[in-house]
Amino acid sequence: MQIAIVLFDGFTALDAVGPYETLGRLPDSETVFVAERTGPVRTDNAHLALTADRTLAEVPSPDVVVVPGGPGQTGQMDNEALLGWIRAADAAGTWTVSVCTGSLLLAAAGLLEGRRATSHWLALDELKRFGAEPTGERVVTDGKYVTAAGVSSGIDMGLTLVGRIAGDFVAQAVQLGIEYDPQPPYDAGAPQKAPADVVELMRSRSRFILGREEPR
Amino acid sequence: MQIAIVLFDGFTALDAVGPYETLGRLPDSETVFVAERTGPVRTDNAHLALTADRTLAEVPSPDVVVVPGGPGQTGQMDNEALLGWIRAADAAGTWTVSVCTGSLLLAAAGLLEGRRATSHWLALDELKRFGAEPTGERVVTDGKYVTAAGVSSGIDMGLTLVGRIAGDFVAQAVQLGIEYDPQPPYDAGAPQKAPADVVELMRSRSRFILGREEPR
Repeated sequence: MQIAIVLFDGFTALDAVGPYETLGRLPDSETVFVAERTGPVRTDNAHLALTADRTLAEVPSPDVVVVPGGPGQTGQMDNEALLGWIRAADAAGTWTVSVCTGSLLLAAAGLLEGRRATSHWLALDELKRFGAEPTGERVVTDGKYVTAAGVSSGIDMGLTLVGRIAGDFVAQAVQLGIEYDPQPPYDAGAPQKAPADVVELMRSRSRFILGREEPR
Repeated sequence: MQIAIVLFDGFTALDAVGPYETLGRLPDSETVFVAERTGPVRTDNAHLALTADRTLAEVPSPDVVVVPGGPGQTGQMDNEALLGWIRAADAAGTWTVSVCTGSLLLAAAGLLEGRRATSHWLALDELKRFGAEPTGERVVTDGKYVTAAGVSSGIDMGLTLVGRIAGDFVAQAVQLGIEYDPQPPYDAGAPQKAPADVVELMRSRSRFILGREEPR
């Protein structure tokens, strides 16, 4: 089983690394990081680079396609080289998944029309404008499409998909291996839970967080 | 504020990326990935590389030192170039933190003698042999040292430290930004919670997971 994780300038690192540390632990699987060009690809704040080991063209038909999000996603919405690859890989593969605003790229590729899906909480309105049906769930499965909410949700998504692919035992072994027994020191991880002033701050900064202007 | 995250061959990606996506969002901070040599550094399964942008020598006195773990940690326990840098950076800085078996490197550098600390659940006995006092907590603070349990715990550790450094409001904003509202599909993230046969499997494979032979 080949798992391809797509990188592009300005992606968010944890969007890619959450699925890598879960799906990437599937027995008899190979994970490959792909981008238009091989070499280092910088994250949203440019303080980190992950290496793309293969070009998109070199990995035409992975079994699982993982599309992360991040502020750089806006720069890819008209990138037909990337969107065309996503479309072709989706047609050939078994699972097409996204984390955070990666779902906007799946939507831009035409894959989420009329489908239940999710994205970063600040991007749900935009996801709807692309024809998807946003839900309030953290991980949404609709057919072969598994979309996850913001950034850290890729871990939950990855474990969910490991369970679907390899069963509960393997998924639990992966969870125990990465000691995923979350104990956040605050309960502010969703807009329904965070203090109102924290939510307001993040809304006011959404164009920096998501790399786009406010929804109109 | 300068945050240095150390890379070495065979580290576990999420050990480093969890702190990066939390501590790295501190206002007025700069995160820099460091290693003995600049360039790509491969993770435990070699399917991913993160770029070290600076050598250890180029970053002598960060405010926060972050030491990840992973199977490659065993190869660093006698690496005086790395351990000496950790010791000197610790003496100069404000916080010295680890994720997973990174705490064994702090212990090997002589920093955890008699201190409360933690590590990956499979490595707690080894941590004790190095003179630290393992606890059952997910994030342990003892003076300037903050150690975290396995792999994914670096997110909880990072949020905890963001709160200590910049206050609850900022920490909650970071949590909401990365939408860290964990909803794992299983409750198997700790050995006390996982099914016995899953725990037994992981114990039997600990030398592969931790990169060392079984504790004796």
